[in-house]
Amino acid sequence: MTRTGRRPGGPDTRADVLAAARARFAHAGYDNATIRAIAADAGVDPALVHHYFGTKRDLFRAAVAFPVDADLVLEAVTGTEPREAAEALARVFFDVWENPQTRPQMLSVLRSAMTHDDAAGLLRSFVGRELLAPLADALGVDDPLRITLAASQMIGIAVLRYVVGVAPLASADVETIVERVAPVLEHHLLAP
Amino acid sequence: MTRTGRRPGGPDTRADVLAAARARFAHAGYDNATIRAIAADAGVDPALVHHYFGTKRDLFRAAVAFPVDADLVLEAVTGTEPREAAEALARVFFDVWENPQTRPQMLSVLRSAMTHDDAAGLLRSFVGRELLAPLADALGVDDPLRITLAASQMIGIAVLRYVVGVAPLASADVETIVERVAPVLEHHLLAP
Repeated sequence: MTRTGRRPGGPDTRADVLAAARARFAHAGYDNATIRAIAADAGVDPALVHHYFGTKRDLFRAAVAFPVDADLVLEAVTGTEPREAAEALARVFFDVWENPQTRPQMLSVLRSAMTHDDAAGLLRSFVGRELLAPLADALGVDDPLRITLAASQMIGIAVLRYVVGVAPLASADVETIVERVAPVLEHHLLAP
Repeated sequence: MTRTGRRPGGPDTRADVLAAARARFAHAGYDNATIRAIAADAGVDPALVHHYFGTKRDLFRAAVAFPVDADLVLEAVTGTEPREAAEALARVFFDVWENPQTRPQMLSVLRSAMTHDDAAGLLRSFVGRELLAPLADALGVDDPLRITLAASQMIGIAVLRYVVGVAPLASADVETIVERVAPVLEHHLLAP
């Protein structure tokens, strides 16, 4: 029993799908939520969800307004030397955080994850599966502790620079910070 | 016009002083709040506040339940080689976060700072003046960006290990993490 055509596509349908996605991701978790179930919750055809939002990953990013595109991250580190890869990762991070359009979304995601266990779990599974695992593959890193330690350095900078606003990290030049943290990312990710 | 003896010392007085301290620190900021003003707010003599809580720093720590003793941190790094100092700092950090008595306090302080600008400002001025500045002195570090970058590495670990619970950082052995982050702290604080 398909529901194709029962609901016309339009701004309300998009909003309905996003609301259904948010609810289902929060309730079932990222891994268990399916496009089919979300479509059913929203009363639309799964094909319409794919048409509007693409993959489950894209739908999640739209639902939680997570502005990091894993493909861009992977592109930045593919075929580079270790130090270059580390610098590229730091730059992608600052591109998202320094952009006035995406910074509020990052702040909101970070604050939610820090204060709501549901949001933390969701972000954990999403970021782990869709961002960190492919990144580990691309870099040839087989120890997952390396990836999370590298992530912890960048998250800590986000907390002190953008959330708590600790001087002089809050006002330091991005290139200066990239220079200081690239060796750290290289150490965490790739040092023997 | 002194208020000595107006209020007897007792559990209520301690609670009154802590409440007055929280309110005044939040309102006036750490630097501007004085023991005298806090005592007046609580309707007690300043000497009683000193007697119960010690210095302004001690009172702040009691008021916000901040379980890090700067003296212990400084002691840990005094007279050590750079790598030893870095390891000692990491260990002091984990001593506080791994202790089931102090972890809830650290979580609460961190969450408050991430979600309330007042709490962030207060913590910033307190930690900057009472912990990071003396630490920079003890290590002979004259670039404050170094101190905040080192702090960012440890804060990031706190966020991923204790708040968001990201595997395998959340379950990794403390000594393993100390080994991985000591070179990072050394790099941030002391590398040429």
